[in-house]
Amino acid sequence: MTVRMFLGHDAVPAIAPDDRGLAYGESLFETMRAHRGAVPWWDAHMARLQSGAARLAMPFPEGARMHAEALKLLDGADGVLKLQLTRGGGVRGYAPDMEAPPFWMLSVHALPQKIDAADVIWCQTRLAAQPLFAGLKHGNRLEQVLAATEVRVAGAVEGLMCDAAGHVIAATSTNVFALIDGQWCTPGLDDCGVAGVMRGWVLAQRDAKVTMLKPADIEQADAVFLCNAVRGILPVRRLGTQRWPRMHPEIRALQSALAQSHPGFDPPREAS
Amino acid sequence: MTVRMFLGHDAVPAIAPDDRGLAYGESLFETMRAHRGAVPWWDAHMARLQSGAARLAMPFPEGARMHAEALKLLDGADGVLKLQLTRGGGVRGYAPDMEAPPFWMLSVHALPQKIDAADVIWCQTRLAAQPLFAGLKHGNRLEQVLAATEVRVAGAVEGLMCDAAGHVIAATSTNVFALIDGQWCTPGLDDCGVAGVMRGWVLAQRDAKVTMLKPADIEQADAVFLCNAVRGILPVRRLGTQRWPRMHPEIRALQSALAQSHPGFDPPREAS
Repeated sequence: MTVRMFLGHDAVPAIAPDDRGLAYGESLFETMRAHRGAVPWWDAHMARLQSGAARLAMPFPEGARMHAEALKLLDGADGVLKLQLTRGGGVRGYAPDMEAPPFWMLSVHALPQKIDAADVIWCQTRLAAQPLFAGLKHGNRLEQVLAATEVRVAGAVEGLMCDAAGHVIAATSTNVFALIDGQWCTPGLDDCGVAGVMRGWVLAQRDAKVTMLKPADIEQADAVFLCNAVRGILPVRRLGTQRWPRMHPEIRALQSALAQSHPGFDPPREAS
Repeated sequence: MTVRMFLGHDAVPAIAPDDRGLAYGESLFETMRAHRGAVPWWDAHMARLQSGAARLAMPFPEGARMHAEALKLLDGADGVLKLQLTRGGGVRGYAPDMEAPPFWMLSVHALPQKIDAADVIWCQTRLAAQPLFAGLKHGNRLEQVLAATEVRVAGAVEGLMCDAAGHVIAATSTNVFALIDGQWCTPGLDDCGVAGVMRGWVLAQRDAKVTMLKPADIEQADAVFLCNAVRGILPVRRLGTQRWPRMHPEIRALQSALAQSHPGFDPPREAS
């Protein structure tokens, strides 16, 4: 892992032991797809990060500086760029030091192995309803850690999660869209879940309906895909007892549009 | 802040940038009262930490080693000893590396300023219901951070928090007990909240009732106190519009018992 760390404007060699991201998960992060040393959707990621920082009343580093350091670290490569932003250091106790400079860390990782479609499970781990943080990609992620462990134990690619009331919210690290009666639908995220940048792109591309979905709605859909800014549009092939053996033409069309919008993503393979 | 860090058995100079406590709040911590270089309630803290590690399927460092390092760091002093335990490092992605050695960090802090009684507010920040992690002192603490900010803005000492259904759960960093019709009561923590070591001590001392409490139940109680392992038993003097100007003899008796059980805590002052 290639990594660079900063406190406010200054490069630092290590995370401070009193960092509040470490102590309390008081942090936000972005996971971005880099292509030939560039980050095509940088602005969308920064917009989400900045809105999260505003909701958590966290300071925000200078955007141009973060971008320049990201490009320097990428050095022309393809890969996954992660940016984590924390509240910075502080005295012991939950109330933050509002004057402390933020800590931010950039790291570059290998792209995940490319797959054409995903086998997905239903996770037992439920998402708690907390409207204060709903939609944010914050650092309190114990629910996803437990759910991702379920996915690995099952040998699946991803796992869909419901809230306590049994409504589908998202998969552990992707958002979900289902084609129902000719209409793309995706769960609302007013109470929990992460509003992914790729989800935002899909919503802008298609007149998708943000609505309440039950597991049966997903299982009976004509097509289902997962999406995030690293994997793009990932068709679901299997979910519980349900199968979608062939990629739906609507998913193929979305993948084509994505490849035109972001050069890091390949157009869909030819139909077999 | 005096601090020492370890990865498994080895002392390390810094936290790894891929630490999962930093990435996801995948961590647990204990905040302990040290007295003359000893930690009188070490065993109770370790029992809770170990039970939390089991619930999160996290590895647990050798207890004797942690104790020896804690005493070395304290070096005879009074103070607050914090122990944070994280999952350790791991690849990017939510599923943990189950083989990675745990990271643990010891730090010593000054005791908080001693106060005789607390002015307390009702926080607007609600606690989300998540039975999977209820009771644990884990590192996903954004709710407490927001609530503690409310407390500071109000100039209060502590703030009581409710769950989404409006039941009282705890204060931001303390548990709460209320004397109602001659019976000590404290909220159940099946859905949220931290089961404090001091709360456990009080429950063992008094035949306290674990029950559902509404804000009005607390406000109309004959006496209310907050407690944690650093501050001990802290009488509530003011809460919203309610006042308890004199310390109740039952609280005085508990403080006396505490001073006998743990030499770090003073007996109650003489009644004025």
